[in-house]
Amino acid sequence: MLLPAIQARFACRDFVPGQAPSPQQLAELIEAGRLAPSAFGLEPWRLVVVTGPGDRTAIARACFDQPAARTAPAFIVVVALVEALEPGSDYVRERFQAEARGGDPAPIHAAYRAFHRPADIAIWACGQCNFAAENILLQAAHLGLGSCPIGGFDEAALRAAMESPAGEVPALVIAVGQCAEAQPARVRKLTY
Amino acid sequence: MLLPAIQARFACRDFVPGQAPSPQQLAELIEAGRLAPSAFGLEPWRLVVVTGPGDRTAIARACFDQPAARTAPAFIVVVALVEALEPGSDYVRERFQAEARGGDPAPIHAAYRAFHRPADIAIWACGQCNFAAENILLQAAHLGLGSCPIGGFDEAALRAAMESPAGEVPALVIAVGQCAEAQPARVRKLTY
Repeated sequence: MLLPAIQARFACRDFVPGQAPSPQQLAELIEAGRLAPSAFGLEPWRLVVVTGPGDRTAIARACFDQPAARTAPAFIVVVALVEALEPGSDYVRERFQAEARGGDPAPIHAAYRAFHRPADIAIWACGQCNFAAENILLQAAHLGLGSCPIGGFDEAALRAAMESPAGEVPALVIAVGQCAEAQPARVRKLTY
Repeated sequence: MLLPAIQARFACRDFVPGQAPSPQQLAELIEAGRLAPSAFGLEPWRLVVVTGPGDRTAIARACFDQPAARTAPAFIVVVALVEALEPGSDYVRERFQAEARGGDPAPIHAAYRAFHRPADIAIWACGQCNFAAENILLQAAHLGLGSCPIGGFDEAALRAAMESPAGEVPALVIAVGQCAEAQPARVRKLTY
């Protein structure tokens, strides 16, 4: 059943210290994110696992040392590939070549050129990253791990901590580990 | 196992005619979307089920009659609540009241005011909708249903077909039903 994983996921604010996910668990989290869908098949993300203590401290600080970040034994940072999304880039050409599966990539390339608006593309790419992020959050729940998506961070500090290239934008920090708190009562709108 | 659902999900372009998901299946798809996470707990979406033949035709047309839309026996349209996201709105006040769980909602409201940028909020809200959309896509796969996320549509035509209020923006059309084609070989980047 999938709904149990969806229901078990919540934003964990307090992780058990020193209990990072195993390499096998981290690999499954990345695999879940890797298989997410994306507009035009562009997969405009990089998924970065961070477990080293120094790096974690720098990332937590960039997240204003909020409890989930301060206590997390590991992070997966979802990074949006913004510069790579230029319609004329090698990256886009390669993705469309793959997406065309041996057919002509020109129509999808033309549609993408019509779609691409430089002013909005960073925010759009960060939104696309949420497909991959949600897969990771659900896979964590499925593995019995706690997680917390953190969108509130000092972008400059996070870029520095990640040594991000100029053309990449951190979209979401996912804290992950054993959760030290019980799932609170769920708050949701009732009507849709 | 969750990875099987993630692996089984693909963009179905051809649906079996006349076989809409059952009311129970549609309810599970909506429930999956409803439980998705969102920044600030704002749940900035509405999830609209469309099964009527006339409405489906209008939506398919707004999606340029692409095969997935033309053949889909049902749609779930994920609509972004943009106007409701004004920091002073009743909607925001109510969500933060709920999110504070009896505590003081003022700090989260202050953080949100600092975050909110009118120029970007529609694109940002559409990106948030991808959390809910991914849950729906995975739940469909879990139920053995095919699905296709469609982001390429004529927004004005879709708004007309949906009779969208002025403050709402369609974020993603999800076609859903019995898939009439086999899953193609998966195309993904190899390195992360």
